[in-house]
Amino acid sequence: MSEAGHKTVVVVNAMVAPLLTGRVPDWVDLRGFTSTQELLDMAPAAEIGWFDLYKFDAMADAIVQATRLRWLNSVYAGVDAFPLQVLADRGVILTNGTGINAITIAEYVVMGMLTMAKGYAEVVRAQDREQWLLESPGKQELHGSRALILGAGEIGGRVAKMLAGFDIDVTMVRRSPAPGCIGPDAWRARLGEFDWVIIAVPATPETVGLFTATDIAAMKQGAAVINVARGSVIDQDALIAALNRGHLGGAFLDVCTPEPLPPGHPLWRVPNAHVTMHLSGRAQNKMFARAADRFLANLDRWRRGEAVAPQVDLTLGY
Amino acid sequence: MSEAGHKTVVVVNAMVAPLLTGRVPDWVDLRGFTSTQELLDMAPAAEIGWFDLYKFDAMADAIVQATRLRWLNSVYAGVDAFPLQVLADRGVILTNGTGINAITIAEYVVMGMLTMAKGYAEVVRAQDREQWLLESPGKQELHGSRALILGAGEIGGRVAKMLAGFDIDVTMVRRSPAPGCIGPDAWRARLGEFDWVIIAVPATPETVGLFTATDIAAMKQGAAVINVARGSVIDQDALIAALNRGHLGGAFLDVCTPEPLPPGHPLWRVPNAHVTMHLSGRAQNKMFARAADRFLANLDRWRRGEAVAPQVDLTLGY
Repeated sequence: MSEAGHKTVVVVNAMVAPLLTGRVPDWVDLRGFTSTQELLDMAPAAEIGWFDLYKFDAMADAIVQATRLRWLNSVYAGVDAFPLQVLADRGVILTNGTGINAITIAEYVVMGMLTMAKGYAEVVRAQDREQWLLESPGKQELHGSRALILGAGEIGGRVAKMLAGFDIDVTMVRRSPAPGCIGPDAWRARLGEFDWVIIAVPATPETVGLFTATDIAAMKQGAAVINVARGSVIDQDALIAALNRGHLGGAFLDVCTPEPLPPGHPLWRVPNAHVTMHLSGRAQNKMFARAADRFLANLDRWRRGEAVAPQVDLTLGY
Repeated sequence: MSEAGHKTVVVVNAMVAPLLTGRVPDWVDLRGFTSTQELLDMAPAAEIGWFDLYKFDAMADAIVQATRLRWLNSVYAGVDAFPLQVLADRGVILTNGTGINAITIAEYVVMGMLTMAKGYAEVVRAQDREQWLLESPGKQELHGSRALILGAGEIGGRVAKMLAGFDIDVTMVRRSPAPGCIGPDAWRARLGEFDWVIIAVPATPETVGLFTATDIAAMKQGAAVINVARGSVIDQDALIAALNRGHLGGAFLDVCTPEPLPPGHPLWRVPNAHVTMHLSGRAQNKMFARAADRFLANLDRWRRGEAVAPQVDLTLGY
């Protein structure tokens, strides 16, 4: 993979470097950046990069300037902030964080369903008031209910496995046919059957606006939405209206539009809207350890000329 | 079961009667009471009773006065408020609500684990402040953790089934040996192994004070307790102290001492104590329908001379 004597320049966020130190093979020249400027300085020399930075615009700039880059890694599952066309034009391989946060996100989905079913947010508020409630603010059982999962990736699959233990009838939607799944054209006609609609589709141009006002109106009276994909996937204004008029029983929104949601935005106060601030993936402390392990395993594959994984399809965007 | 022409007098709370009307067999003389006084008036004639009343003392009085009673039914799972010795002396059969609320209580247990793991109560409070959190207040995954379930009844069994979908390593404690379970003398020595201790034992004289200050101290640093049994099962003062000094990561207390917890009681404000006001069994709307179905099925068994179920062991108290 490199000339004799030449080490492969691998540029990573310095926050990740401690997890790699002492573990990278000797053909790697590991360089850690501690600031946006350092990333921009190091990017042109990078052959392998792990450029993750909260400032997406600067990260995208660095990617554009990294003209020697052959493989870019990220801990993010959603890569909609990456310049995918630039990577595609240059033949750069992109590996993403698919599955790294799937466990905690799937757990968050089930928490959202349970807390809405039992009205738990109102219980928290009652405790803060030191008030002993005599009736449960929520009286639903998950048992015997029906759930639709849009998106049959790592998150959707884990949610389905968890819900099986609750005796929930789960229907998954996926592009490619599979047992127990329905196709992307089949779910709309059946929306009225489900108590829960769980949105866990990848963030791509194709999924923007996927869940329309018509879809919301077609949902069963009192049903609930859980969104762990992107705020842009759902018609948020129509969702707010459906909650306000009581058509939907609840919405558990780990994602919303815009993010961060500014103080004073009406969504904070919509009845039965639960805003969880894109925390689902952060509600664990194993993300970087898992990502580092995966990156090191991929470095070995790269050296042997094998395919690194999981690779993003730069056309599909996931 | 009765003389020719004589109908069996069945006295039930009038709140239940609508669920039975038109469904009781013709050998039944169904009488509904609408007040404590009516129950006391009707009790002496009752051959079969369903005396459930929120005023436990009055209900116990009525049972003592129901000298013709042969079978008493209840929707409650815990029968510690019933005069069990009186029933035993008179040879009265007691059927209880075991299992009727088990589904929702088990769901509540898993909700307690998830909400503590993710710090969800703090997310609710942040939404109320319209504050976008950048970090999750809780960063635990249920995946890969270890849980001890004290009590292998209907609730414990359902919790174990649900937790399997989360890849949690579950150990159950039960009196009688069974696969995957440990005996009542084996769990104390292993308390330090578990991230979760779930208390779902029956409410009996034997389980009062079961979980001692020593047991709490033996728990793993940062572990959490979930109690859906009775407040009296756990040394609450020791629990509060362990939470205050940070030894335990959390306590999800559907039950506590006293109930209702009065305003101003320190437990309301203990860090990481979640007081859920004995709502777990009430977080559903199927209890009375299920109880009525079971009671009607039992009436048929009674008429045929078969055993009604589930029967409380009046010596063991569950």
